[in-house]
Amino acid sequence: MRVFGIDCGTEYTGWGVVEMVDGPRESRLEPIAAGAIKLDRKHRTPQRLHQVYVELTALLEAYSPEVVAIEDVFFAANAKSALKLGHVRGVAMLSAAACGLPVVEYAPLSIKSAVVGHGLAAKEQVQFMVARLLDLERAPEPADAADALAIAICHIHNARSAQGLLR
Amino acid sequence: MRVFGIDCGTEYTGWGVVEMVDGPRESRLEPIAAGAIKLDRKHRTPQRLHQVYVELTALLEAYSPEVVAIEDVFFAANAKSALKLGHVRGVAMLSAAACGLPVVEYAPLSIKSAVVGHGLAAKEQVQFMVARLLDLERAPEPADAADALAIAICHIHNARSAQGLLR
Repeated sequence: MRVFGIDCGTEYTGWGVVEMVDGPRESRLEPIAAGAIKLDRKHRTPQRLHQVYVELTALLEAYSPEVVAIEDVFFAANAKSALKLGHVRGVAMLSAAACGLPVVEYAPLSIKSAVVGHGLAAKEQVQFMVARLLDLERAPEPADAADALAIAICHIHNARSAQGLLR
Repeated sequence: MRVFGIDCGTEYTGWGVVEMVDGPRESRLEPIAAGAIKLDRKHRTPQRLHQVYVELTALLEAYSPEVVAIEDVFFAANAKSALKLGHVRGVAMLSAAACGLPVVEYAPLSIKSAVVGHGLAAKEQVQFMVARLLDLERAPEPADAADALAIAICHIHNARSAQGLLR
């Protein structure tokens, strides 16, 4: 199972691809790629959204995941910042739909629980555990890329749990 | 000048095309087309956003406007509804950018002022005046289509004012 995680943001939109490789005795998580789309501040919103769309669809085509996982947002920030995040999030979901891929959403609490073991983990703990789970020397940078990998790991964890394959 | 107005919504996204036709003595507003994209409640968000994107880009290609006008939103609703509206709004702006069209945004107050003459007008007054300004027997339905025409009229009014062509 190959999962493409997206961590939407108005400055950086992180992305990360993780594959669950089934071995003879056990399965392991393999990091395929990760990065972040940096939105150009000089551009206006429609051009920035177009950049997100073009880059994300190119990445989805390049890495051929089976599913796209994104963070579900229910934070208490003000309506204006929610609207701005919604712009990017809408375009991210559209990119997946345009590539014919299903989209799954996970609450921040579920993502932290899946990666660290509890929902109140600090950002640094998430990054530390992403590196550890994927057998990387250090967490990918920027942090948005590591967060996107965490979202992908969360989906793999949940999908496997649903199949009864994880303890 | 041909303007494509979009009234974003999570159930209906209205659209309307208005042209300013310059005559020998005076200019007049001509309604080209209007309608609303009804989002299918049976579909999930990514598929709905894909529907908005596909229909909007087809309309933009069909009607070849010079500019896309959308409503700027600074309402005080909760963050969750702002996020949902942001999804549609982001995809609408992307559609314009993907067609190489500039996007202009107008506050609800400016739209009402341009169409009715003051910013506190009721929804029905806006619809009445849209029909009157475009010489239509009645306002187009659903109301979202009329609202989209109002946004297009607002831009024409502002662009002409900037040129010093309107009193």
